[in-house]
Formats: sequence, structure tokens, C-alpha cells
Amino acid sequence: MRPDGRASDELRSVQIQPDFIIHPEGSVLITIGRTKVICNASIEDRVPPFLRGQKKGWITAEYSMLPRATPERTIRESSKGKVTGRTMEIQRLIGRALRSVVDLQAIGERTIWIDCDVIQADGGTRTASITGAFVAMVLALRRAQERKQVNHLPIKSYLAATSVGIHPVYGPVLDLCYKEDSTTDVDMNIVMNGHDEYIEIQGTGEEATFNENELADLLGLAKKGIHELIEVEKAVLGDLFNEQKVGSSK
Amino acid sequence: MRPDGRASDELRSVQIQPDFIIHPEGSVLITIGRTKVICNASIEDRVPPFLRGQKKGWITAEYSMLPRATPERTIRESSKGKVTGRTMEIQRLIGRALRSVVDLQAIGERTIWIDCDVIQADGGTRTASITGAFVAMVLALRRAQERKQVNHLPIKSYLAATSVGIHPVYGPVLDLCYKEDSTTDVDMNIVMNGHDEYIEIQGTGEEATFNENELADLLGLAKKGIHELIEVEKAVLGDLFNEQKVGSSK
Amino acid sequence: MRPDGRASDELRSVQIQPDFIIHPEGSVLITIGRTKVICNASIEDRVPPFLRGQKKGWITAEYSMLPRATPERTIRESSKGKVTGRTMEIQRLIGRALRSVVDLQAIGERTIWIDCDVIQADGGTRTASITGAFVAMVLALRRAQERKQVNHLPIKSYLAATSVGIHPVYGPVLDLCYKEDSTTDVDMNIVMNGHDEYIEIQGTGEEATFNENELADLLGLAKKGIHELIEVEKAVLGDLFNEQKVGSSK
Amino acid sequence: MRPDGRASDELRSVQIQPDFIIHPEGSVLITIGRTKVICNASIEDRVPPFLRGQKKGWITAEYSMLPRATPERTIRESSKGKVTGRTMEIQRLIGRALRSVVDLQAIGERTIWIDCDVIQADGGTRTASITGAFVAMVLALRRAQERKQVNHLPIKSYLAATSVGIHPVYGPVLDLCYKEDSTTDVDMNIVMNGHDEYIEIQGTGEEATFNENELADLLGLAKKGIHELIEVEKAVLGDLFNEQKVGSSK
Amino acid sequence: MRPDGRASDELRSVQIQPDFIIHPEGSVLITIGRTKVICNASIEDRVPPFLRGQKKGWITAEYSMLPRATPERTIRESSKGKVTGRTMEIQRLIGRALRSVVDLQAIGERTIWIDCDVIQADGGTRTASITGAFVAMVLALRRAQERKQVNHLPIKSYLAATSVGIHPVYGPVLDLCYKEDSTTDVDMNIVMNGHDEYIEIQGTGEEATFNENELADLLGLAKKGIHELIEVEKAVLGDLFNEQKVGSSK
Amino acid sequence: MRPDGRASDELRSVQIQPDFIIHPEGSVLITIGRTKVICNASIEDRVPPFLRGQKKGWITAEYSMLPRATPERTIRESSKGKVTGRTMEIQRLIGRALRSVVDLQAIGERTIWIDCDVIQADGGTRTASITGAFVAMVLALRRAQERKQVNHLPIKSYLAATSVGIHPVYGPVLDLCYKEDSTTDVDMNIVMNGHDEYIEIQGTGEEATFNENELADLLGLAKKGIHELIEVEKAVLGDLFNEQKVGSSK
Repeated sequence: MRPDGRASDELRSVQIQPDFIIHPEGSVLITIGRTKVICNASIEDRVPPFLRGQKKGWITAEYSMLPRATPERTIRESSKGKVTGRTMEIQRLIGRALRSVVDLQAIGERTIWIDCDVIQADGGTRTASITGAFVAMVLALRRAQERKQVNHLPIKSYLAATSVGIHPVYGPVLDLCYKEDSTTDVDMNIVMNGHDEYIEIQGTGEEATFNENELADLLGLAKKGIHELIEVEKAVLGDLFNEQKVGSSK
Repeated sequence: MRPDGRASDELRSVQIQPDFIIHPEGSVLITIGRTKVICNASIEDRVPPFLRGQKKGWITAEYSMLPRATPERTIRESSKGKVTGRTMEIQRLIGRALRSVVDLQAIGERTIWIDCDVIQADGGTRTASITGAFVAMVLALRRAQERKQVNHLPIKSYLAATSVGIHPVYGPVLDLCYKEDSTTDVDMNIVMNGHDEYIEIQGTGEEATFNENELADLLGLAKKGIHELIEVEKAVLGDLFNEQKVGSSK
Repeated sequence: MRPDGRASDELRSVQIQPDFIIHPEGSVLITIGRTKVICNASIEDRVPPFLRGQKKGWITAEYSMLPRATPERTIRESSKGKVTGRTMEIQRLIGRALRSVVDLQAIGERTIWIDCDVIQADGGTRTASITGAFVAMVLALRRAQERKQVNHLPIKSYLAATSVGIHPVYGPVLDLCYKEDSTTDVDMNIVMNGHDEYIEIQGTGEEATFNENELADLLGLAKKGIHELIEVEKAVLGDLFNEQKVGSSK
Repeated sequence: MRPDGRASDELRSVQIQPDFIIHPEGSVLITIGRTKVICNASIEDRVPPFLRGQKKGWITAEYSMLPRATPERTIRESSKGKVTGRTMEIQRLIGRALRSVVDLQAIGERTIWIDCDVIQADGGTRTASITGAFVAMVLALRRAQERKQVNHLPIKSYLAATSVGIHPVYGPVLDLCYKEDSTTDVDMNIVMNGHDEYIEIQGTGEEATFNENELADLLGLAKKGIHELIEVEKAVLGDLFNEQKVGSSK
Repeated sequence: MRPDGRASDELRSVQIQPDFIIHPEGSVLITIGRTKVICNASIEDRVPPFLRGQKKGWITAEYSMLPRATPERTIRESSKGKVTGRTMEIQRLIGRALRSVVDLQAIGERTIWIDCDVIQADGGTRTASITGAFVAMVLALRRAQERKQVNHLPIKSYLAATSVGIHPVYGPVLDLCYKEDSTTDVDMNIVMNGHDEYIEIQGTGEEATFNENELADLLGLAKKGIHELIEVEKAVLGDLFNEQKVGSSK
Repeated sequence: MRPDGRASDELRSVQIQPDFIIHPEGSVLITIGRTKVICNASIEDRVPPFLRGQKKGWITAEYSMLPRATPERTIRESSKGKVTGRTMEIQRLIGRALRSVVDLQAIGERTIWIDCDVIQADGGTRTASITGAFVAMVLALRRAQERKQVNHLPIKSYLAATSVGIHPVYGPVLDLCYKEDSTTDVDMNIVMNGHDEYIEIQGTGEEATFNENELADLLGLAKKGIHELIEVEKAVLGDLFNEQKVGSSK
């Protein structure tokens, strides 16, 4: 039995509250167990220098934790004057994941800025950020559609992410809370789209290893979790692809 | 009539939600109109180098805004690699204000870290931060009392802050929202304690000035607003000073 | 009796030496007691990006202390690689104060850079900087007039600043030297123009407070000191506003 | 046929030249095709603060590219004053990979610093760095054994890394050169030990995806490549584990 | 004839005003023509980490220019957040030069901090800094003698520095002002002690060269200038070495 | 007898391996004794802002050491986030030296970037960098000639650099290895062109001095060494000036 009584293939409770902050084009608060992340999506009418003139857009992400999102206070990165390697890794991961499901040509020379700010952390903040950011981004793109900046919703698929790991006591488990994560040797983050395709697999066995069978178990758990997360997204966003057909039939 | 229909001496709606984040020793979400600030107080068992060995504590504050707390996305200070002058000014102000109502000897060689993170901004974020941080700090000190780190609540008075200004149309007004603030020439932040004493007056007339009569009007409005804010604090915290007498009679 | 024998409402000796450094458009050495600040004003033919195309100018200030302006050597900010919060606060204050008395439209798309470098400190460096910088700026604007960059002296009023405080022994006093400042609980910096109007009031009672009567005493002392400082300015600059009428009558 | 005529499951030519630089405890130049990385291992007699007093060691890695390791000159990170996110990601990956095959208790309170400096890049620099760094680290630990700092070679397994990808023309391929890498949608770096166990899987499909069958193909190619790389390591290092048994039988 | 009418082997007018700033242990204002540098020497009772426990002292220098020391305003290094290469070179040169004439054992585990702040520049600021800093340092060491921190004046020789150059019109010249310096191809800074020995020769011919005969001319001019500078030092400091004998005969 | 058995006027063994790295326009590995420096020259089709529109080019250099180029590991400058004063000094020296032998008008609005990366250090890295960089730069300019970017080889002379010093035991010596350098009081770097003209003399006697006769000895040794280094350059590059005459006779 896991610390919070879950089965090994059971997600924590998931809520996605849309329109959480009033200013951004898209905003959600995603809550997964005790992990809470504010995900905001902003649309800027220009692209970074390396893309200028290429008639396509860009998606970039920033990730941060409030100092007391964690049990011990963490020093603020703005006070240190630099962003840690961990933060950079997560930011790059979120950006790549979101870009895989957006038609960048269709958004034109615009940048979608994703800001994921963890206000309370209990494990799985990077995968919660991806899932929440996907919803915030879709909300922002709907706003862009209303403003006639894009003429259809330029989304190719749903997208969600979760973590899996091999715990020395509970074995392969889905959606690790912090207490599990800190005692797990093998840890894997999986990002998938709505067609059961992998966007990203990041598995690491610090001071541990995993074999082919264990890998298969982990991938199976992740697929189940991502199916459920996409159901939560659908409850918030509706069915994107029927809507989109309607949109494009005009 | 002000843009949101308030009278010139009327505060916006104020809520202080205690225990907002689970990890900090003290945590509140303060909402003033559409301004929302998470105020967390952490207790660390050491003091900065300049105070070591002096048998007294310290209170220090950090302030930050999420990039989309504002109508336009603001660049994250951690990405810029430095903290702006505005942020530093606000941090120093919050720290000074809180230190004025705490018995630093009584908390021993400990630091209270105050983190004010603005998740949604609509004017008055620095004064909302002070008011919210006061409540978070009292909650943290009660936790310290429960843990026998201090033997009474080392608070000398209530504390609250508000902004006042002279608007070219509405005249002297209390508690400016962003729309008012951005069109106001003279702007003043006032911090007072529960004994009607000033802790801090910061009045500035960029490209404008104010005379002695106008100053008197502004100080009067501020006093009224601070009385009302302290009533909200009492509703959350109870009556601190009867409690404290009881505590110290043991 | 105060440490240097002054009455409570008495300024230290004030000298303003014009044309102190040969290169700047305007330059003074201001000496107030043992505090010495070199104030240089430079005119640059462009404005910061946020003002481009708006047909108005800007005034910005930088403030620094030589490492041995102080009794103990202070680490150089260029060596630390960053500017402290205190420095930023002072820089912002000087800039705001000067902008309040200049017709920014009249100077066109130009920036006036103010550099205040404290070569010897004995309290009151930020207020001495404002007073000295005002004179350096007027000298620079006269140079601009000679060069036909502006067609009248775009100054709306005299400007000066001083500090006042409540000392535990001497009570309310004007123009604190370092020894007084370091033992004073309540400290206030006041910037006023030549029409007895406030530009800035910054009063703070770190670990102390002040009531309404004390505030009135402090404001009275400041007004007296600022009147005297403006007399010193007039001795250096002549009567700006008769001159200006003459100038504009051509 | 791939651009350099290789079969899809064929590694480029691999050389590992030991004792390349004279000063480090362990040093190799690893050449994979046209990619050349100097890998140096240094042993320092202390550990980072978070490990002090725990009687175990640490392994940390730094990675850098000479500005003209690449076809276009890249700005030096020391000139920019900060390390990019890509560099941090690679450094963290190299460190984690090496720590997975070392008995950190056995090396005592020492840090092994790994420096991977790419002097010529043609794809696969991060995986070449891991493979080269493993050899340099073993050479350094043998030096430590000679100096009686450790009493056996504290290595648990061989370790190697390679890249695989799905190319739009050639399909799944092993060991991508830069020309292939830049036109490949799905890219995966695999780190394995000498027991066919995974240490790290990092697969990403920027603007692309991969399904379960494709994943299986990629993992198969990687395993073949890693077997061959470990043979090259054995040619340089000899058979580590017979040696080690002899050592531990003393 | 040179621009200011000097002969080719003629120094500009030199003044050294002792005790210029009240706080430092040693302070001078050195004026050479229109170049003015405040040189302060501070004594700190500890040495940098690399010297701890070695029972010897250290001398380190910092150099800076006020933004309007120059005809065009220079950006402040504290605002840029870093010190330029030119500044670092000068700081290292000043420190090396001063260390060559001090008995570092005799000053014990103390650091002499030299701060050279150029308030007005007209060529030759680095050599004026060395000459001025020597005098400030001797004044500080006399203060240390009075305080019984050292039991004799630990100075081995006088020290001075000057610049020489080959001007396309005037030929080899001594003590270049800015106007000459900016049109001179070959430029050399020479530091010598009171025994006609070289401490430092830094000669550079950017986009130009110099041959052996020209080198001999330049060295001859420098020697003459340094003799005269040492006479100015003696006028301020008195005869150090008779004094020192008296001191050591006690 | 010197530690490695050389005569006092004897260079270490010198090799210059052209085309060491494949990507740069010019690349060499220079080996002087055990000192090894990779020198790469890159041509960029633009100049720094201060030269734009002036129809001339620029040459700029960067210098770095791998962390284990030295017996003890040196912290990487990219990790420290800043470049040391020593590195800046060397970079400026290399740039100035190379600019003295190039016709900057003839290269047009282009920048030649020189990267000197020391992979193994044993004294004399800055002078080896200059000598190696000269050869890499000539190779790059020949590439520019082939590409018709320049119509003749815009080189005015050969260029080489060496170090000399006064060793307490061996007396004046040429080409110091690290062991000699670290025990030598007076140390001088000399850069000369192929016409026996000085480009740069940097002589310093930290905690020591040198007189006129010693200076003459040092300059004589340097001239001999530089003659020999230029012979090595000619063996790699051929006779530049016969070639150039041919080129310009077209």
C-alpha cells in the first residue's frame, strides 16, 4: 500500500481550474494531489530573432517555484541572480512538449509564453506543469481565434505528462508524490499526445538501473495515467477536434 | 465617482485567507479588490552574519510578481539575472515595517523570512503585501509559540498599510486601483501600527507636488483605511493583546 | 546641545563650488559639514527606448560612494558586480526629484544624466546629492541654452532637500550628521521646491514610530532648512526666474 | 545509404587515446567519426558541502565546446557570463551516468571532477563525452589505487552511451552525425552499463512523435552500439572485473 | 612645440595634496596637468585566503573613473555589472608596483587597500595613480607606525611612474596629455624605484612599432620624469630613509 | 644548467601543426615544450559597432585554459560567470599584437576572431598563443584570398613572441618553462615582427627589479628566440612576402 493509500496504477486527484488569473490570454490552476501550479499562457506579437521572417511562431516556457512551495525554503533564483540547471531542463522540456502539438505555421509570427509557477510542491511539478500548460495554451489560442489572430485552433492533438518510477517497496508505480519520489531509484517522466504517441521519455536511474521488462511496466503505467489526464483536459476544454472541424468548415 | 463606484474614502473589498499554502509556518492569500498576494512566513534558526552572537532575531522580506500578474507580461527577474530597483525598494520597505512591531530580542537568533508573491496585480501590491505579511508573520510566530521556540507572542502592535493619492479628477482618494494609480500625480504609501503611529510615510509627486493641506487630507484618508484593515486582521487573528496577556501571565 | 554644537533647527555649513570638474556640461562640489559630493550633469542627445518619438526628454541619476567615503572601507559596487538596494533607492529618488522641476517637453529628445559621487560621507549624502545635482543641472541647461539646444531655461522652480529626525536625546533636529543619524530612530528626507510644495516625503521609523505632532515638528524643521539651502543655490545661480523672463522677452 | 555510407546499425570509427593530457589523474581523447572530445578526470580531496561528513564521495562533470568546435563560431560561455541550459543539461547527465557505476562509499570523501571539452563537433558530443569520461575516470581511479587512496577499483560496471534516431529517409539509425542529427525528428540518447541495464533514456520528438514499435527499434540499435563501445573500452582498460577480483582477494 | 607648449622632456605641473579625504589611513589628491586622482590607502587587519597563516601582508589596488572624468560620459562599471579589461589591467599594475617597494613581512597579516578614483582625466591616469598611491600608502603606513601596528616604516624605496611615447609630429615625448596620447602610435608606461631600477615596462605599438634606438630614447625620458616625480614625493613625505634609520635605531 | 638541460639562450622544441581542427578558416596546434595551444582563426562578415561604416576590419582574441591544462584543476571561467583579469590582459595583448601586422583596410568590414585554447600548460602560454595565432590567422586570410574576400594577403610582416626572465640561479634565460617561471623574479614578454621591431614589451619585477644592463640582456635573448620562431613559421607558411609581391603585381 502506497503512503496515501493509492493503488500502484492510480493517479492522485486532479483538478484544472480555468481562468484562474484575469490578465493572461490563458490561465489555469492545476492541482494534482497537493501539488499546485499556476499555468499562464501569453501571446506576444513577435518571435525570437532566430525565427524572424520565417512566417512561423514559437512557444517558450518558464518555470519557477515560490520559495515556500517546498517544505524547506528554497532561495529565490532572482536573488541568486541565475537560474539553476534543473529549472532550465524543465523549461526546455515544457517548451518542446507543447511545440509538438501546435501548428507553428498557423500561429504566424507570434510567441506563446508559458509561465508555470509552482505555488505548492508535492512531487510531479514538471509533469503537472506540462498538463496544465497545455490547457492554458489552448485557452489562449481560443482567445486568439476570437480576436481573429488565427483562423482555426492550431492544435494537432491533446497532450499530457506524468511520472512513473520503480519504488524499492511498492515496485512500479504511477504519479509519484514527493515522499515516494525521494525514495525511488528509477524515475521516468513521460509526455504523450492523444494518439498514444511518445513526445518525450526521460528515464534515469541515479545509483540504480532498470532492465527491459521494468521499462515495459513503466511505459504501461504512464499510458494509463495519461489517458486519464486527457479525460480531465476534455472535461475542461470540450472536444477540441470536433470543434475544430466545425471551425474549419466555415 | 471613481471607476469602480467607490467613495473617495472607501477601501476595496478585503479578504485574508489563512493557511493558504501548506508548507510555510505562516501563510495567507490576501485579496484587495483584484490584487492578490500570497504572503508566506518562514522561520529559520539562524540570523544574518551582521547579527550573529547578539541574541536577537531578524526579519527580512522578498517580493516578486508572477510575469502575468500584470496586463502585459513582465520579464521574470530570475531570467534577467537581477532584481530591479523597484523590487529592492519594496523588499526593504516590507522588512522595515514588520521589524517595527516585533520584539526582535524575544525571537532569539532566528530569521523570519517573508515572501510576498503577487499572483494578480491591480494596484497597491506593496501595501497589500505588508498587511498580508503581518498576518502570515503572526501565524508563524504562533507556530513558534506552540513549538516552544518563543514563550510569548513577540508582537508589539497590529500593523497595516495602504495607499492614498491625489487624482486629477477625483481629488484625494483612498486605496488606488491600477487605473487610478496610473493617472495619479501624487501617490503616498502609509504604514501605521495599531496605536495610530506612523511607521513609514512615502509620498512622491512625480511631475507634480502637494501642499500642506493636501498632505493633511491624505494622512486622514490613510488613517481611516488602516483602521478598517486592522479590523480585518482581527477577524482572522483574534485579539492579539488579550491573548498575549494571558500568555505572559503563565 | 548637539555633538557639533548646533541648535536643533540649524543646518551645517553649506558650500556649493560650481565648475568643479572641467568636462561635464554642469558640475559642482557640494559640501555640507563634512559631507562632500561631486555632482555632474551631462546632456545626451537621445532618450531611453520607452520615450523615443514622444518629443520629450528624460532625467536619470546615478549615485555612488568612493570606498573610503566612509569610516570603514565599503566594497566597490563594480567589484560586487551589482548595485545595492540602497543605491537604487537613492538613484530613483534623485531622478524623480529633479524631473519634478524641469519642463521635459522643452528639453526635447535629450537625456540629462546626473552623477552624484560621494567622496566623503558624514550623513545626509542623498539630500546633499539632490541639492547639488539641482545646481549642476541648471548649469548644464544654461550651457544647452548657450548652444541653442533649448531656447529658454526649462526650470519650473528651485529645488532642495534635507533630512530631519527625532533623536532620543536632542528631540526633533534638522540636518543630521552621521553620528546623529546612526543613533536616531525616526529619520525623514524631505524634498521641496521653491514654492513650499512637497516633492517627496520619506519618513521611516525603524524599530520606532512617530505620531502626528512629531510629524508636524519634522516638517517645520525641514521647511526652514530648505529655505536656507535655496538661498545658497541663489547665491551660486542668481535669480533664475527674473533671468528667465529676461531671456524669454528677447 | 547514410551520408557517410554507413549501414543503419553501424557506429562511426571510434578511438580512445589514453593519457592525452599530462596533468590530470585520468585523461583521454575520444574520437568518434569527426567528433573529438578531451575527457579529463581530476580527484579532489573533499566533497561538496551537502555531502560533508557522510563518508562518501561525489562525481561531478563540466562540459564545454571550443568556439570553433562547430561550423559557425559559437560565443564562449565565459564571455556571456553564463552557462546555457543545454550545457547544464549535459553536465547533469554526464555526472548522473558516471555516479551509477561507481561505489561512492569506497572513494571516501573525495570528488571526481570530469571535464569534457569538445574540440571538434560532428554530432553525438554528449554521448561521446560519457563514454570518454568513463575511461578517464577509471584511469584516475587506478591512479588513486596506486596512491593507496582507495584499496580496490570502486567500479561496478562498464558504461557507455550512444545516440539513435528516426531519420525521415534512412529510418531508425545508430550514432547520428551532425548532418543526420539536424534532419532527424526523433532523437534519443541511451546510457547503458555492461549488464545491459539502462542508466538513462532521453528520447524526444521535437515537432514529431514515435510509437511503441519505433521505440523498440531504437532501443535495439542502441544496445548493439553500446556493446561495441564497451569492447573499445576494454581494449584500452583491460578486463576491469577480473582485475578487481584479484585486488579484493588481498 | 607640444600642444600645451611643453618641451619634449618636460612633465606637466604636479601637485600632491596630502590628507585630502578625512576617513582613510592615507589619502592624497594628485594633480598632473588636468588629470586629478584621489588616492586612498586603507589598512585592513587580515589578508586574502591564499596568504593566511604566512605571516606576511598584501597590497591590492582598485581603480575607477567617475563617468564624467572623461569628455564623453563613460558608463559606470557598477551599472554594467562588470569591470572592464582595461580597469583590471590597471588595478593589477598598481598593486604589483606598490608591492615591489614594501616589506610585506614587516606589515604582518594585513592588507593595504589602495583606491585610485580618477575624478578628472587628461591622459596618464594609471601612472598618476601609481605615484599618488605610493604617497597615500606611505601616509597610511606612518599611521600604522603611530598605532604601533608596525615598528618601522616598511618601505624599501621611493616609487613613481610616468608615460612616454613616440608622437608622429613631436617625436619621443615625456608625460603625454590625452590629446597627445590619442594621436601617439607608440605608448609606454614605466614604473621605477628610487634606485633607478625598473619595476615595470609596458610598451605597446598598436598599429605601429619601435626599434632599439627609439626604445633607448623613451627609457631616457622616463628616467628624467621619474626623478622629478620623486622630488615632489620627497617634498610631501620628507626623506623617508633617514627617518627610517632613526626609527630603527630606537 | 636549466632544469630541462637547455642553454640559457635555447628555446624549447617548437612544432606548429596546421589544419588541426576542421571547421575554422585557420587552425593550428602549437606545441612549445610541453605547452600546447589550439589556435583557431574565424572570419566574420561584420565589425564591432565602434567600427561600422569605416571600411576597415578588426581582429579580436579570446584566450582560455582547459581546467586541467594546469597541475591543479582551475575553476572554469564560465562556471565563475566572469573572466579573470589575467585572461583579459592576455586577450587584449594577443589582439593588439596581431593587429600590428595586418592591413585592416584591406580586409574590409570583417572581424577575425582568434581563439587560443590552452589544452596543456607548462609556461609561456600567452607568447605561444601569439605565435600560433599568427599562423592560424595567415591560414585564414589565405582562405579569404581563395574565396576572393581579399585580393592579396593583407599581412605586413611575420610576428612572434617569447618570454625571457632573470632567474635567481640561471641568470637571464630564454623561453621559461613553468618551473622556471614560478621561481623567476623578473619576467618579460616580448612581441616582435619580422623586421626586428618591437610590438610589445611587458616586463615586470614583482617583488624584484631590473637595471639597464639586465634589460639589455633580456632584449638580446628575446630577439634570438623570435628569429628562431619566425623560421618555424616560415617552414609552415612558406615565404609570405615573395608570394605577396606576386599577388600584388597582378
